[in-house]
Amino acid sequence: MRMRNKPWVNDFIDQYTGEALVDPLVNKGQWHDLLAVETLHVEIGSGKGGYWLTMAHDHPNEGWIGIEKERNCAAIALKKALDEPLANTRFIIGDAKDIASWFDAKEIDVIHLNFSDPWPKNRNTKRRLTHQGFLRQYHDVLKDDGLIIMKTDNKQLFEFSLISMQLDWLLKDVSVDFRRTVQDDAITEYERKFMDEGLAIYRAVWQKRIV
Amino acid sequence: MRMRNKPWVNDFIDQYTGEALVDPLVNKGQWHDLLAVETLHVEIGSGKGGYWLTMAHDHPNEGWIGIEKERNCAAIALKKALDEPLANTRFIIGDAKDIASWFDAKEIDVIHLNFSDPWPKNRNTKRRLTHQGFLRQYHDVLKDDGLIIMKTDNKQLFEFSLISMQLDWLLKDVSVDFRRTVQDDAITEYERKFMDEGLAIYRAVWQKRIV
Repeated sequence: MRMRNKPWVNDFIDQYTGEALVDPLVNKGQWHDLLAVETLHVEIGSGKGGYWLTMAHDHPNEGWIGIEKERNCAAIALKKALDEPLANTRFIIGDAKDIASWFDAKEIDVIHLNFSDPWPKNRNTKRRLTHQGFLRQYHDVLKDDGLIIMKTDNKQLFEFSLISMQLDWLLKDVSVDFRRTVQDDAITEYERKFMDEGLAIYRAVWQKRIV
Repeated sequence: MRMRNKPWVNDFIDQYTGEALVDPLVNKGQWHDLLAVETLHVEIGSGKGGYWLTMAHDHPNEGWIGIEKERNCAAIALKKALDEPLANTRFIIGDAKDIASWFDAKEIDVIHLNFSDPWPKNRNTKRRLTHQGFLRQYHDVLKDDGLIIMKTDNKQLFEFSLISMQLDWLLKDVSVDFRRTVQDDAITEYERKFMDEGLAIYRAVWQKRIV
């Protein structure tokens, strides 16, 4: 999500010294111990943090890591995280292209991609979070039966992902008009807007395929 | 598509002796010669024949076979076929579960599934035209780079097909809101209705995967 630059953002992030925001390089291979959990969820592109923090709150026995590279969004998410400190969550400000240097092989249970930037232009294909460059790293850091769960309102990104992921991932579940039947999945502000407008939400769940 | 029984149907079909309607068992392995074409298209569940006959008319150098098991629909399609006899088309009244006894291995270039009956109840899963029982036969009768092209308005059938076909078929193209950008694909009456109502049409193209 693009936002205007906010003047307080860089100082706030750079001067923050608490526990919520972590240097991911330091914790590689130790996330389960750090959060004292057995199951580790990672949301890539967590925006202002609505989904990741709600899920962390609702599922205190699971670990929830948010990753966001856009510093204006990230600063808002960090503020939100500080309002209600949770032991089972940490925040990473950085680009998910480095994810394999932050997590050990097979360290993550579930990667969540919620309403990711669609990067519609062909020249930006590589920036889409389901491009092969990212997928290869997800394949490394996910455990053997690990999942990727994508929700998006963007048709092109969804179609691209269905094709991009077909070889190394097993499509476990897919919906071209996702409506929650159980209330165990948080709804982001961004998503609520689409639901209120009656637009379709696309969702897919892929499992890492071991060939 | 379900229709009311029409009293004239059985007599009309049973007494018809022309060339349009064929006994498929007799032509196995000889369809290309019979139609004098190099490319063979087959539409399974061709309903009243709108798509298949329009495509045959528009593409006289390709062979187009329609298959329909529902005799009320089939009779209307046969009448339509007789109104404008085309050398490059034939009609089969029968159940596509027998398709591998009608076509030789690798005899078909493209199988078309247009707005197929979704068979929504779980107990009828096997009747869906993209169930494994059908898919195994399509894999036999399609040539090595052969295609299946599906269009449907039915979300559940589309989602089922994406999952059902992922292992033995390569997803070449997918659209969750198909709009024609080129005018070389006929629009059926049934499809027109959905387009007029502004409903999404789902389309996928799969290629036979040789493992």
